[in-house]
This record gives sequence, structure tokens and C-alpha cells, in this order.
Amino acid sequence: MIRPDIKRLPKRANPLEAQKKLFHAIGTTKLHIETIPLSEALGRVLAKDVFSGVNVPDHDKTFIDGYAINWQETKGASVNKPAAFKIVGKLFPADYPTTVKVKSGEAVYVACGASIPKVATSTVKVEETRLNGDQIQVMREIKPGEGIIPRGDDVKKGALIFKQGQVLRPQDIGLLASIGLTKAEVFKKPTLAILSGGDELVKQCKENPERIANNYALVVAGLASELGAATILQGIMPDSLDKVQAKIGEALTQADIVVTIGGSSVGVKDFVPDAVNSLGNPGAVVQGILLRPGAVSGFGIVDGKPVVMLPGHIGSCIAGFYLFVAPLISRYVGMEGAGMLPCLTGELTEEFDSGPQFRFLLLHLTRVEGKFLAKPVEGGSSALTTIVKSNGYTIVSPHSTLAKGSKVEVTLLGKLELTNLES
Amino acid sequence: MIRPDIKRLPKRANPLEAQKKLFHAIGTTKLHIETIPLSEALGRVLAKDVFSGVNVPDHDKTFIDGYAINWQETKGASVNKPAAFKIVGKLFPADYPTTVKVKSGEAVYVACGASIPKVATSTVKVEETRLNGDQIQVMREIKPGEGIIPRGDDVKKGALIFKQGQVLRPQDIGLLASIGLTKAEVFKKPTLAILSGGDELVKQCKENPERIANNYALVVAGLASELGAATILQGIMPDSLDKVQAKIGEALTQADIVVTIGGSSVGVKDFVPDAVNSLGNPGAVVQGILLRPGAVSGFGIVDGKPVVMLPGHIGSCIAGFYLFVAPLISRYVGMEGAGMLPCLTGELTEEFDSGPQFRFLLLHLTRVEGKFLAKPVEGGSSALTTIVKSNGYTIVSPHSTLAKGSKVEVTLLGKLELTNLES
Repeated sequence: MIRPDIKRLPKRANPLEAQKKLFHAIGTTKLHIETIPLSEALGRVLAKDVFSGVNVPDHDKTFIDGYAINWQETKGASVNKPAAFKIVGKLFPADYPTTVKVKSGEAVYVACGASIPKVATSTVKVEETRLNGDQIQVMREIKPGEGIIPRGDDVKKGALIFKQGQVLRPQDIGLLASIGLTKAEVFKKPTLAILSGGDELVKQCKENPERIANNYALVVAGLASELGAATILQGIMPDSLDKVQAKIGEALTQADIVVTIGGSSVGVKDFVPDAVNSLGNPGAVVQGILLRPGAVSGFGIVDGKPVVMLPGHIGSCIAGFYLFVAPLISRYVGMEGAGMLPCLTGELTEEFDSGPQFRFLLLHLTRVEGKFLAKPVEGGSSALTTIVKSNGYTIVSPHSTLAKGSKVEVTLLGKLELTNLES
Repeated sequence: MIRPDIKRLPKRANPLEAQKKLFHAIGTTKLHIETIPLSEALGRVLAKDVFSGVNVPDHDKTFIDGYAINWQETKGASVNKPAAFKIVGKLFPADYPTTVKVKSGEAVYVACGASIPKVATSTVKVEETRLNGDQIQVMREIKPGEGIIPRGDDVKKGALIFKQGQVLRPQDIGLLASIGLTKAEVFKKPTLAILSGGDELVKQCKENPERIANNYALVVAGLASELGAATILQGIMPDSLDKVQAKIGEALTQADIVVTIGGSSVGVKDFVPDAVNSLGNPGAVVQGILLRPGAVSGFGIVDGKPVVMLPGHIGSCIAGFYLFVAPLISRYVGMEGAGMLPCLTGELTEEFDSGPQFRFLLLHLTRVEGKFLAKPVEGGSSALTTIVKSNGYTIVSPHSTLAKGSKVEVTLLGKLELTNLES
């Protein structure tokens, strides 16, 4: 008998296999590259290996304020038998290249960062000398190369500086600048369009245009942008198949990844899977997974682009986000593996029994005496406060009992969670 | 005897006491507050406690697709003796407030998120019913409240949602939206102006206008912006006292915090401390600290604003940055304690002996089998590659020998380091 009050969803999939399927489906997607100024490159991912075309520094320099001399002339020098040098010049960092030479018995004042004059082998700190008119006295033996940074000491010409996939940190950008680059070739940020389902949101917007009705879209957008995506809040899908089709179709023209929130379950107004099926092949690939919460998550592929269908309950939505959307973004920003999300090891503060399904377990991780305690967060999967109380998650296999104190791999919900780890 | 080739710096300060002095000096600085749209609030810090003016949800709702009924009518129901209900209506999430009632023997279809009709106490999932014409059969006893999210379940009207100082994560922004807010009151981002010292930079800029001469300023700017500051690259201070004065004076009119790089040592062209002294009272407060690297770091206060004097060697510059600048930014963005920088516990991979001074020890932290190994990073303090190889640091007290395997508190250099922790 066909029931008008319930839709038939395919058999629910193993969530980890569903994730693999998603990656297989988008496996050949070509990542786009753009060239951007270094000043905008923070947090972006290098699209190519970078080799240095120069030596850094490009000439021998001193790293002290002192005097450049030839070390051999300090042999046997001591407090009682100092070696004397006549000061014949001054060199500052801007004085390069230099033609200044030190001859026997001569010294040249060198300010920190200055080039080393020819023939000089070493530098001695100002504080280690005695000044006497135009002479200095050196009271110990100075080693060859002392106080000198040789050419290429920091970076050798031709050396591999960074590999493709490097996330550019401030110091990396500084290093790129120091080898003379002004721009970086990075992977383009993937654009991610977010659609929220439901006439109730349309109604809320009408009743109170000021208010942000699709607040879950705001959460998903924030999480996605922390992971490196450029997000588009694509608005609300009203409850009819043709309007849901039209909105998803529009989003597909604008974004690399489309994410829908709500409308993917078995209710009579859950049109998202049908809309995805109607838009292209293969359409909906996974509808429903053996994950709690998050069971009505799924994804489709339309014109080679992923459409991730997230459930309307925020807890389930977040579970689907971390299973499908977060790894997608990491793949599209050009990172391997865990991507931008840090993983830490914590000790469970209480026993946890997963039951017959995979479990998406929200945790609150705190650092106590140098180790992390992972406390399962109580609260319904419809409550945003449950997510607010959490800073990480782990996925637990079916039929598993994790004892109190057992180690769990906790993925933090985002980089901002780090401010939230101290007990 | 006055030596023209060396400046006298005051006795070097204990770095931790110097840090306290800095905080004491800026202790009364008032933080500014601004009101911004929630869409721009990611990572910002709440300037006030937030209480909810509403209940979330604001009416009893169902979290399943099913039928609303009165639980008492399912007493004794079983597969063999189902309880029957006549379907008398449908409710969708947009149908609120509702005047629909269920009478004895009646059920109303409720889509996930719909209001609960009056008199109904519970909902039963579509999949748990049998449909027979306009009737459903329920095959088990349903509990009072089953399938229902009561009004205020997520957030109670009047409840404290967030305390001042909360760093707003995506889920926090979602929660603010769900209590009807569209904006957040946050602390203004402190502006931080960065000045680089040295005629050699002026020369580099002239020789190659394309090139970024002050690449260390780029590193400091990146680190500061990751911590929440708005940064201004204020250019280069040529090597003369009046020009250094003018540049720092100009920066003070534009920024909350001024940071100079280079020119703070004992060289004959190190004008920064004198310039700071000349600009106002008390001027330079700390010149030189007992920290290696980082010894010629210091700070002054001019018109109540901090001027941090960082050394010109990048390793020393970074040490001074984490000692003075990072905590300043955290204070000015409105955070307590460690601020935005995460701290982790690692095991030293080799013995480390600090010697007579405090040591700023750069580390590379990797996660191996659930724990962190902290490897001291080799390399000169003039080499940017030393910083590139590092992802964290610790400060070691003087005359300390840390055994291999001993636990150290490692502060990560920034949030982006988290992508860099796996071995």
C-alpha cells in the first residue's frame, strides 16, 4: 500500500562508506588556482611547490653591533695581551654591496645587519672591546666566522621552501617575501551555497523582516568559512517541489558545493531528495545514513557538483556537516587528510554505549593537568545550546562500549574552539 | 669614558616582571565597544553579558514527522490490540500559533517542527503507525510528552546565554540569532601599527619597488591579525632620530598599539628608545630583558599608549612579540588569560639547559600516538626558516635543566598551527 503520509527512503548507508562514496564521486574535480598578493594569503593553501631563486641573506652579514676583523690577528689575545686594531671605517646595513677591505691591523665598525668587508673573517661585539682613540683592543681569541651569517644561511638558492598543500601561516608569508616574492599561487576558495528549507522560515521572514530566520544556515556558514570556504546564504526553499528544484538549480550555477538544511526526511513536504534527483544525474546518491543523530543526511551529485542534504534538526545537521561538508571543503581548498580541523586525544569522563548505530558524539574537551578530558554533552539534537556547550566530536562505531577513561580521538568543531579548552 | 660606538641601556629586566609592568601601565585603558551585524561577528569577543528575552522554542513543537495524540488513549495498546485514531487535520511548521484541537479518538498529522495541537500530549512517528483509510493505528503505549520539544527547552526566557568575554563561534552566532538578535555588542578590534627600522629597507624599496622589503613586519602583522588586531603596516623608519620620532608619533595618532621592529639595540643608529623617550611620559619603560633570544626587546608608554620595541632579528622579534604584543592584543580584544593562543602540553624530545637567562624556546610539536612530542627547533635567531620550522614556544626559567621526556607547556604560535600537528 502506498502511504501518502510517508516517503520511502533507500536503505540507510554506513556513514563512513557514504563518505567514501562522496569522495569517489568528486574525485576528478579539478581545483582552481589563483595568484594573490602575499598580504591576502594568510590561511590560504599553496597550489604549487615553491623553490627559492635567491640566497637569503644574499651576502655575508653580521648579526651583532661590533667590529669586523681577521680572526688570525687575535691569536693569543687576552686581557693582559690584547690585540689592537685601527678603526678605518663604518658599515651599516644599507651599505651593500661593499668594496671596503680590512688590512692587517685594521677593523671596520659594522652595525647589526651590515655586510662583512672583504678579507675580514669575523666580528667582535662592541661590548667585548676597549676603545682607545681610533683603536680598539680585543681581549680574547676570536673564531673564524664568529658573529657572521654566511650568504644562503637562512635559505639556499634553489632550495624547496614549501610543498603544495602548505597552509600559509604568518611566518611562511614572511619567508615568501624574503625570497623576493610578492604573490602566492593558491587554490581558489570553494564557494558553498546554503539553502534552508521550510515555509515557516518564509513566514518568520515576512512577520519580522529584521530577524534572521535561517539561523542554522548562519551556523553552517560560520563553520564552513572557518574551514576556508566562501559562503553564500542562498535563502529559503519554500515547501513545494518546483520551488525547491529552482532554488537548488540556482545555487548550482553559483557554487562549487550546495548544502541544503531540512527537507530531506520522510515528511510529506520533504522535497529535497526528489528535487536533487530531478536536476541531473546521478542525482541523490545517499539518502539516509546509519548515524545518530544525523540519520536523514545524504548527498547527491548534479553536473559533477555535490549537493549535501543536511537534516533540519541542528544536532543532526551538524553531524551531517562534519561527515560530508567539512571533508569536502578540505578537499576543495587543497588540503589532504583532516584539513583545517585539529584533532586531539581525550579521556572519556564517563562510559558511553553507542547502541546499534554509528554515533556522532558531541564532546566538551577541557585541558586538566596537561591532559584532555572529554565529557559527552547532554542535550537534545534539536537544541542549539547542545552545540554551544560542545567544542568537539567523535564518531563511535555501532555496538561499542567505551569505558570511562578510555581514549577518544576528538575533532574540534573549529579553530575558535581553542580559546575554549582550559578548564 | 663615553663611547661613541655604544649606547648604554638600562639594566636588563626580568621578562615576566617586564610583562607585569606593561600590564600595570595600561591597566586603566578603557576598551571600546561597537555593535556589529551577526554576519560579521565570527571570532569577535562579546562586550556584555547576553540574556535571552524569549523562550526557544516559543511554543511546544514536535521533532518528528508523525501524529499528535493524547497518550492516555494508547494505554494498553499493542500490535494485537492497536489504538485507533481518526486523522482530523495536518499541521506544518508554518502553522503557528495553532487553534487546532484533538478530541478523544482523534489524531492530527504533524510535520517535524510543527506546533502541537491543543489537548494533544504526545506524538507518534509515522513509521510506527498503520494507516487505514482516514485512520491510524498505534501499536504501543505512547508516553506523555513523547516526540515533543516543550517551549523554552533550548533556551528559557531570562536565561544568561553568554558572558562578556565569550569569543563568538559559529554556533554562538546561531544562538544569538535564535533569540531574535541581529547584532552583537563586541569589543572593537585594537589597531596595531607596525614600523620597521633601517635605511637598508629604504634602499631595498628604492631599488625594487615591487618587493616587500619589510617582510618581518608582514610576519608580525599576520600573527597580530590572527590574534584579533586590525593591523596597519606603517612603513619604514629611516635611520635618524627625528625621522624615527616622526614615524612613531604619526603611528601613535592612528593606532592603539605601536610596534617597532629593529633599532632598539646598542648600535649607533638605534634611535627607537630615544625617540620613544622624546615623545612623551614616561617614555621608554623597559629597555632590554633577560631573555634569549629577545634581549633587546622593550616597551614604552606614550600618552597612555604602549609602544613595543621589538628587536630586528626575526627570532628575537618573535620572542618579544609573544612576551609583550600577544598578551597586549588579548587584553585589548577583551579576553582574559591566554587569549586566542592555545596551549598544549608536550614531552620534550631532548634535554634542554637554559643557561643563565630566561629562554624563549621555539618548538615543533607533533601528535604521536595521542600525545604531543615537543622538539626544540635548531637554527639561528636571524633565520626566518627557524620560525617556519616551529609551531609553538615555551619560556624556560634561568638555570633550569629540563630532562628529555619532561612535560612542557607549549603555546602555539597561532590558530593556523593546528593544521600542522600531525606527525
